Amino acid sequence: MRKFIGIDLGGTNVRVAVVTELGEITEEIKRPSQASEGPEVVLNNIVEMIYTLSSLSEVEGIGIGIPGPVDTEKGSVTLSTNLNGFTGYPVVDYLKEYFKMPIYMDNDANVAGLAEALVGAGKGRKVVYYVTHSTGIGGALVVDGKVVSGRKGYAGEIGNIVIDRDRVRRSDVNTLNAGAVENEASGSAMVRKAQETIDRQITSAFEIFKLYEKNDPKAVKLVDEMSYDIGQLMATIAHVVDPHVFVIGGGVTSSRDLYWDKMKAAYQDLVHPHMRDTEFVLASLDEPGVIGAAMLCYSQEA
Amino acid sequence: MRKFIGIDLGGTNVRVAVVTELGEITEEIKRPSQASEGPEVVLNNIVEMIYTLSSLSEVEGIGIGIPGPVDTEKGSVTLSTNLNGFTGYPVVDYLKEYFKMPIYMDNDANVAGLAEALVGAGKGRKVVYYVTHSTGIGGALVVDGKVVSGRKGYAGEIGNIVIDRDRVRRSDVNTLNAGAVENEASGSAMVRKAQETIDRQITSAFEIFKLYEKNDPKAVKLVDEMSYDIGQLMATIAHVVDPHVFVIGGGVTSSRDLYWDKMKAAYQDLVHPHMRDTEFVLASLDEPGVIGAAMLCYSQEA
Repeated sequence: MRKFIGIDLGGTNVRVAVVTELGEITEEIKRPSQASEGPEVVLNNIVEMIYTLSSLSEVEGIGIGIPGPVDTEKGSVTLSTNLNGFTGYPVVDYLKEYFKMPIYMDNDANVAGLAEALVGAGKGRKVVYYVTHSTGIGGALVVDGKVVSGRKGYAGEIGNIVIDRDRVRRSDVNTLNAGAVENEASGSAMVRKAQETIDRQITSAFEIFKLYEKNDPKAVKLVDEMSYDIGQLMATIAHVVDPHVFVIGGGVTSSRDLYWDKMKAAYQDLVHPHMRDTEFVLASLDEPGVIGAAMLCYSQEA
Repeated sequence: MRKFIGIDLGGTNVRVAVVTELGEITEEIKRPSQASEGPEVVLNNIVEMIYTLSSLSEVEGIGIGIPGPVDTEKGSVTLSTNLNGFTGYPVVDYLKEYFKMPIYMDNDANVAGLAEALVGAGKGRKVVYYVTHSTGIGGALVVDGKVVSGRKGYAGEIGNIVIDRDRVRRSDVNTLNAGAVENEASGSAMVRKAQETIDRQITSAFEIFKLYEKNDPKAVKLVDEMSYDIGQLMATIAHVVDPHVFVIGGGVTSSRDLYWDKMKAAYQDLVHPHMRDTEFVLASLDEPGVIGAAMLCYSQEA
């Protein structure tokens, strides 16, 4: 059984795991990522972690998932917002000084999408579109088992897609477009809107769904609007890539029973009739980050 | 030099050509397509045309470009609107009865995009997004020299993407969404709007651009709005696939000097800063239809 190292580097923690070609984790280490300390501290920590793996001698390659758009040819992050000093830093080249094996890097949503496409809910499907619906909204396109990252890694930056150009720009929150779907239908956007219209004490989308279940009219309106906005996003994506399946993950999906039917209805209303039966399935992996990072090695050589 | 047959089947004419692997046409025949006569008449006509090719014995495969979304696995059109009886008809299987070689079929916009990506304006680029801006608006995604057609061939049906959900649905024109970009910014949409707001005698986008050059305020408004709508469409596509280049063809581009700068400004305003320098180039092939159809053979085996 072939094995690869998967690294899931986030703003808070970093996970390093040995993963088989079937997506099984055989060994895993987790530490704080020390994101504020700069790339050398962060990467030396990862190098140390890799050296402590008992099966290091058996692995054939290393894959890294990292926040922010990734220039996969250069092996660096185009624009890093939560890892200090990583913008443009040659991460892959740095690690190659220590490990004489193929090393690949891609965006965290892209590697999660790759994991779902290869060994998760999208397994066996030719064109998989993965969407993470969480505090933010991100996506990943996987075709024939390979991630399409694009020119500078901005493929899948779907949170900035305008679903309604007449909405107010939220310059107080971020630099996304007026009417960008992330500022209208993400978990954070729902909380922001609920604080404005329902109760300033609300801090999670889960609380909004609780009120929705009690038929609170403002919560119903909010969930309805979110469902439509996400459905329109999916329709937009479908007209670009017509995926065999949409795989959806992220925290908001824990309340999927309360909004997926509405989301699908909006989707079906906004696509050509033959596209209406596109499947929407829930992401199925507990740790798509390390698995997908490891799978980068496998998918790149195919 | 390897050679393939490319077939460009349209509602009016059908072209059959022998094309080299470099995209050079060495022989070409054109006839009326007899689109109203049903698939057997149309296909028997094509079979005859192929038999008349002097270099038939040298070709290694056949590719067909056809209007409408194509199920590339089945080798049939999912929904045909301008070829009578073609919906679901097993075109590829029918031709395989006559020719013992690989036969592939895809949508006309997809094969045009493939031609531009392999031997045209997008040559050598990893992710090419092709847009045809004509009476309609269509697109094609080509990754690593292969078309991404999607589940039922609806990848690239970008004309139905909503760029402004508050526009009026044009049920009098077609079944596209309210605010679908094709009904707002295609050549036909421009003419429709110009007839409503400027002069009922206007019959072409070219006339509108003529008025624009004379600073007719209504024509300026129309061109400005179209440019913004197309720019937003491009930004939307870029957030899904981040292409290395946009290749744009179609009749409206003959007036590109009058609106591309505005279109690009809108695009740049609606994408992340690192995406602003994405290239927009004009399609460069005279006959992308037959060339791209032939190239299907070449790209599918790679």
